[in-house]
Amino acid sequence: MTPEWSPRCTTDPTPRERPAAQAALDSATERVELTPGTFLMPGLVDLHIHAPQWPQLGTGLDLPLERWLFDYTFPLEARYADTEFAAAVWDDLVPSLLAMGTTTAVYFSSNHLEATTALARACARHGQRALVGRVAMDHPDGTPEWYRDATASAGVEASKASIEAVKAVGSRRVEPIITPRFAPACTDALLEGLGELAAATGVRVQTHCAESDWHCDYALDRFGVSDSTALNRFGLVRPHTVLAHSDHLTADEMAIVAGQGAGVAHCPLSNAYFANAVFGVRKALAAGVGVGLGSDIAGGARPGLLGGCQDAVTVSRMLEDGVDPALGAPQRGVPESRIDTVAALWLATAGGAAVADLPVGLIESGRCFDAMAVRTDRPGGAIRLWDGIDDEARAFEKVVRLATTDDISHVWVDGKSVKQ
Amino acid sequence: MTPEWSPRCTTDPTPRERPAAQAALDSATERVELTPGTFLMPGLVDLHIHAPQWPQLGTGLDLPLERWLFDYTFPLEARYADTEFAAAVWDDLVPSLLAMGTTTAVYFSSNHLEATTALARACARHGQRALVGRVAMDHPDGTPEWYRDATASAGVEASKASIEAVKAVGSRRVEPIITPRFAPACTDALLEGLGELAAATGVRVQTHCAESDWHCDYALDRFGVSDSTALNRFGLVRPHTVLAHSDHLTADEMAIVAGQGAGVAHCPLSNAYFANAVFGVRKALAAGVGVGLGSDIAGGARPGLLGGCQDAVTVSRMLEDGVDPALGAPQRGVPESRIDTVAALWLATAGGAAVADLPVGLIESGRCFDAMAVRTDRPGGAIRLWDGIDDEARAFEKVVRLATTDDISHVWVDGKSVKQ
Repeated sequence: MTPEWSPRCTTDPTPRERPAAQAALDSATERVELTPGTFLMPGLVDLHIHAPQWPQLGTGLDLPLERWLFDYTFPLEARYADTEFAAAVWDDLVPSLLAMGTTTAVYFSSNHLEATTALARACARHGQRALVGRVAMDHPDGTPEWYRDATASAGVEASKASIEAVKAVGSRRVEPIITPRFAPACTDALLEGLGELAAATGVRVQTHCAESDWHCDYALDRFGVSDSTALNRFGLVRPHTVLAHSDHLTADEMAIVAGQGAGVAHCPLSNAYFANAVFGVRKALAAGVGVGLGSDIAGGARPGLLGGCQDAVTVSRMLEDGVDPALGAPQRGVPESRIDTVAALWLATAGGAAVADLPVGLIESGRCFDAMAVRTDRPGGAIRLWDGIDDEARAFEKVVRLATTDDISHVWVDGKSVKQ
Repeated sequence: MTPEWSPRCTTDPTPRERPAAQAALDSATERVELTPGTFLMPGLVDLHIHAPQWPQLGTGLDLPLERWLFDYTFPLEARYADTEFAAAVWDDLVPSLLAMGTTTAVYFSSNHLEATTALARACARHGQRALVGRVAMDHPDGTPEWYRDATASAGVEASKASIEAVKAVGSRRVEPIITPRFAPACTDALLEGLGELAAATGVRVQTHCAESDWHCDYALDRFGVSDSTALNRFGLVRPHTVLAHSDHLTADEMAIVAGQGAGVAHCPLSNAYFANAVFGVRKALAAGVGVGLGSDIAGGARPGLLGGCQDAVTVSRMLEDGVDPALGAPQRGVPESRIDTVAALWLATAGGAAVADLPVGLIESGRCFDAMAVRTDRPGGAIRLWDGIDDEARAFEKVVRLATTDDISHVWVDGKSVKQ
């Protein structure tokens, strides 16, 4: 099918002023006929992916966060000093995620400048829209000696250099993002320096925020204020800052986040593993906080965001009802927490696009054509549409609930086919 | 690969006395070469499937149980009065589940005798090991007028007839199971009559037990005792009775269930939707209760049990840590509740086989060869094994976490290939 409107495709905040790019894209328009029963949907915006953790996807998920980080994650991430290894992983990761419908990816790369630039290049080459951040981390207690920035100033300088290097890749779909890992991994000087860098450059920021009991207690102990308040004081909670997790934000902290125009990458599956609690999507939205979804690869072991939508609905039901049968029902859960499948897909598309300020997430005139087509009739697939049983709403729910990568027949970014 | 030992395949409690069947099977042995990197695993034993709900899989999961039952489920199940419709669904359901590795299925069929017999025939024809139960339900308050047994005695008679009809299908892998839907859908007379039928025939029983706050309150209100105690008084908690859900069992009730030799079909995903709590696997195992996994199609919207394993780990973590960030950590969860991936797969195979008393669930001499082979190298799949990173334990975890139906290359029941 050909959309009536022309795809318009840039992450520039003033896209209407770029007629040259527009003309280039108009000429690239191609006609694709979708078979009957195929759903055309916006591409998925994954707000939280640790790119270097791709090789560990699906492992170690019985461990507490500290062991998971120090035994599995940091040793793996340290290997990306080898840029050849990094490039091989990126060349598998990026097309794999595109095939799953992840048209936009917000990446934590590793601590390495070269590997991070290589990730930006891989996104540009394979056609994925992306924000790519070199991970800054220098705290002698929160990081291993063999995997950190040598000093705070070295960390700020490398982050600055990474911004330039990602921009130099030259794709309008691939932008840098300033990425302090999380407060426990960063000294005050690094956090402050990165806040200043964000103010000076206007480049977006991402970090982990208020994820677990340990994380929150740590921040309170070190800063005397909550994690989000500390991040805000360092100038890191800014317009379109992506705060991953944030499940322990209080109402007051949500007001600050909303007031700054920052948003949350809700990672429902990793909430179950590393957060000790579930993020309250409806409370956050009611407080004016922007919310999108993140897979949190590899803390979340489902790489595509359709699985993330399923998990978002599931954990919202569990937040509403509670988990411990020994408690009385009124003590057990948080009333009015549940979301439905439509809301979950909204988070994974338009919601995430708004958090990151990208002109995608809906198929409508004025936005880039980042989209995917999902078959409902693949032999061997789990989706079944039954005459006289499934209306359009139920069919939609089945697609979000049951589609796997193999059911996604087409994926487009900026109107260009990106699924091989 | 050829197993060293001969497949021995029957659900007869005295299998060693059947040399004729043994000889027939020995002659059917065929040699299959698996490609390197392929995992051979026991077939999955799904202890709780509502076969007639297959067409609604993935829909209505934002609804509370009552609306889900009366708006979606009962109208659909009532359609199975049309045996032709039923046969068409079964001919899709059974091979679909086999392709997902579900070598054993414990089915709730519909309320209809003919449709239930047709389901048993479909299992026999497609080669699935199964327990097939006609659903008995007659309570004027808990069921709609247009979908129930006319009287308690009619319900008992139809259940008796269904036992005979399933046996008459003549497959040693397909057996009947007595299936009162759940106490709220059955009068005392029906529950009592089915308890007597179980005692008289020795046929296994399955039902829902202590699933939700509503279910538990209802039982207490009607019987003056808990749901499991009432079921036990009606003679329905017997050796190898499969009690679905059971998340609200107290320690005392677990002791009764264990004492009777009954077991639990733990349905982790549907716990999140309809149970108001999470079943404590470790508490139950410590109390001597047998536990296996159920998909609870369609209350659980993931049809294969590998997804069920993932969900079992996930909800166990959420039970341990709790969900409500406003509660202090000590009030929030239930310590020592989490299980790992190995335990989850054990539940989905050997655990379930023990609950249902079937000679499957492990690949070892003395059990039937119900198994599946999972590829780790399928183009387009999510599993990646990396040199120098993934040892065998991690590779196993990736298979359970990331395999989809398309990664399952072979499925065998009784040594016979059953995946097309």
